[in-house]
Amino acid sequence: MLRNDTICALSTAPGMGALALIRLSGSQSIELVARLFTGFPADLQEIQSHKSYFGKLMDDDSILDEALVSVFRNPRSFTGEDSVEISCHGSVYIQQRILELLLENGARMADPGEFSMRAFMNGKMDLSQAEAVADLIESEGASDHRLAMQQLRGGFSKEIDALREELIHFASLVELELDFSEEEVEFADRTQLKELLSRIESKVTSLLSSFRLGNAIKNGIPIAIVGSPNAGKSTLLNALLQEERALVSDIPGTTRDTVEEILILGGIKFRFIDTAGLRDTKDIVESMGIERTWSKIEDAQIVLYLFDASVDHKVSHIEIGEISGHIDSDKLIIVANKIDAADAVELENEFTFFPDLLKISALSHKGLDALKDQLLSRVNLGEVKQRNVTVTNARHAEALRKAKESIDRVDQGLDDGISGDLVAMDIRQVLQDLGEITGEVSTDDLLGNIFGKFCIGK
Amino acid sequence: MLRNDTICALSTAPGMGALALIRLSGSQSIELVARLFTGFPADLQEIQSHKSYFGKLMDDDSILDEALVSVFRNPRSFTGEDSVEISCHGSVYIQQRILELLLENGARMADPGEFSMRAFMNGKMDLSQAEAVADLIESEGASDHRLAMQQLRGGFSKEIDALREELIHFASLVELELDFSEEEVEFADRTQLKELLSRIESKVTSLLSSFRLGNAIKNGIPIAIVGSPNAGKSTLLNALLQEERALVSDIPGTTRDTVEEILILGGIKFRFIDTAGLRDTKDIVESMGIERTWSKIEDAQIVLYLFDASVDHKVSHIEIGEISGHIDSDKLIIVANKIDAADAVELENEFTFFPDLLKISALSHKGLDALKDQLLSRVNLGEVKQRNVTVTNARHAEALRKAKESIDRVDQGLDDGISGDLVAMDIRQVLQDLGEITGEVSTDDLLGNIFGKFCIGK
Repeated sequence: MLRNDTICALSTAPGMGALALIRLSGSQSIELVARLFTGFPADLQEIQSHKSYFGKLMDDDSILDEALVSVFRNPRSFTGEDSVEISCHGSVYIQQRILELLLENGARMADPGEFSMRAFMNGKMDLSQAEAVADLIESEGASDHRLAMQQLRGGFSKEIDALREELIHFASLVELELDFSEEEVEFADRTQLKELLSRIESKVTSLLSSFRLGNAIKNGIPIAIVGSPNAGKSTLLNALLQEERALVSDIPGTTRDTVEEILILGGIKFRFIDTAGLRDTKDIVESMGIERTWSKIEDAQIVLYLFDASVDHKVSHIEIGEISGHIDSDKLIIVANKIDAADAVELENEFTFFPDLLKISALSHKGLDALKDQLLSRVNLGEVKQRNVTVTNARHAEALRKAKESIDRVDQGLDDGISGDLVAMDIRQVLQDLGEITGEVSTDDLLGNIFGKFCIGK
Repeated sequence: MLRNDTICALSTAPGMGALALIRLSGSQSIELVARLFTGFPADLQEIQSHKSYFGKLMDDDSILDEALVSVFRNPRSFTGEDSVEISCHGSVYIQQRILELLLENGARMADPGEFSMRAFMNGKMDLSQAEAVADLIESEGASDHRLAMQQLRGGFSKEIDALREELIHFASLVELELDFSEEEVEFADRTQLKELLSRIESKVTSLLSSFRLGNAIKNGIPIAIVGSPNAGKSTLLNALLQEERALVSDIPGTTRDTVEEILILGGIKFRFIDTAGLRDTKDIVESMGIERTWSKIEDAQIVLYLFDASVDHKVSHIEIGEISGHIDSDKLIIVANKIDAADAVELENEFTFFPDLLKISALSHKGLDALKDQLLSRVNLGEVKQRNVTVTNARHAEALRKAKESIDRVDQGLDDGISGDLVAMDIRQVLQDLGEITGEVSTDDLLGNIFGKFCIGK
């Protein structure tokens, strides 16, 4: 899997900017850039690591650009290999042409995530840290950023690794017993082994329990919006978006989706899922659509029931009753929209039925802060802050689940007094499952799968 | 106009990338970054210029990012001031948050072009060079890039400045005469002055003559496409675009326009202008639309007459005749599209009328290379390569035109033997006109106007 050839890629966002960064990694990267760049000392050995050299990038005998070029010598680089960063003017033409010249001189376009994969292969970071780099780059809010940073800083890798080391010790002892199987010796203290297994299981269980929230924070807390199309859902989402946008600088990047809307509120990513259609097709309860809607409502962490107070005048008690039958009551937020045009007395009556009723006007931005506070209060951030590790990655959760099963099998085996070779096999399986998280155990397929999802240039 | 406060901006393209660059300039920039960044030596005086420091960017007591930070000490920086570049992970959240923290710590968001304006103000480059930086960043093809680079490397600034220096010398001599006006002395040799004026005028005229092509290369060589809507114009443009895209890497950036299509062919930017409508409204010759179409055809550097050979079977000789009446014949390219479905004999007959007829099929990409060669051969690139300076900037062309008029006035004045004070005034006007190009003479309005069009972060 590991190739030592020299790779290059644009590492900054595509498109025109004042500046752009092009990155190379591999043993030939310094020599290769030196063929195009006038700013290096004649003796390439004299190039200092971590220093910016100013000079011209030549395209044959004409000047392509004036650029700052920095060399990061192996092993003091992100990848652990000799690396070069070219900081050039961010013209689309210049970016393309530099890459073309690098390719002509023997570099290869990097595959997605190839810089990170080399960093992993060269022991600069473990697999879960490399994955954290990708998460970090994709982070859009304070909370998903925090989780990615925790993971990048080592997260649970170290704990898992320490427990794994202990278990490896037992595995060797158990396997040693097999060599002396005639003599029925017991090198591995079963009580200590069971105690270790229990510690590992408790850690794994705790990590697994953090996954639901961790995953929601990474991908957006799912909020199902229930309400007829005229209730003002899209006005509400736009209003929330505007309020938030006013706070941050105008760098674009918030991903929009036609079916789901991602909004960052108070640093937390929310995924608003449209369930319009519940009301319209209420009669044909058997229809697929309705089932899908209910499943969306049940999966959601928050259900926002939005109604147009100027038309409907009152909450549909039947609908609320139906929804309450499907979800925990603390998931439901009832919101009366268009209160400016609503009948105040009727709204007041509703308030006696639903004391938590929120009254807003999406159009005039009234009541939005209260709604935002409600949404934020439903996310148990305390839990995230308290833990210093939270599992956000589905692959890690899957490996932890498998490890938990394997641990149970070892435990059960010990209780059943099964033979040493079977115990050893089961322990090896636990080691395998845990090792997959940090990449102690990995296959080309696994790595290809993980790094293939990264962006190019990382 | 010049403010010394510390400015910051994202300098790479907006959006998510593996990495992003945030740039600061101003006397406080090093101290300000040091408040957030753990990687600097404790004594900031020990920070070396042009060196990358690795460390953590702190957001209060949590880690925002791990970053490489480089300091460029005054005057060895782009702006000539103390500058700092932060190379961070390219998450939208991290980019925003770093900028927010810099603002909280006393930096200010840079205005568009403010880094370049400071470079100009601090004498790092003249005004036409600063403008060239903006052009360089916007360059999309090899030829507009080449012209921007010529200008950035000094272009005609030095020549203009040298001639201006000579003229200043004469201006002072003429003005000195005024102090001795009673004595009728003549310090300034009129013959030498006329000789200098003639040299300046010849230079100005030569530069002005390069503007038409220079401007076309910068903004795209205008090609008017004449032909009925079913002739396959948009299929042709898409086919050309695809052919070209296959050659370059997939960095987006080619600007598309609904009325005009910009295509980079063989490194040259072409602007395809749709003139559909000529045929349909032929009868009402008086209509505004037709006049506009003719004016587009006359302004174009190339006129592409495209017809559907499968339907029309033959070129509209009447239309060709009409067009030829409006333009130079060497501007016209006649193209038969959909030749796969055309009657070969009829096409052969057309060929005897129009021996240069190009036969293509936009759909199956047949004959596109020949068409591309035709387009490229109509652009006199030899002229651009031969000259080492080409005027591309409308502001420069305008200043040169004004300078030419002022020179003529001085010249005429000398011939008419007008009084020294009037000659001196006219010479001062020439100096003013030429000085505006390089910024020797500038006003806040002029600078605001020029730099306001730059992108932020440059």
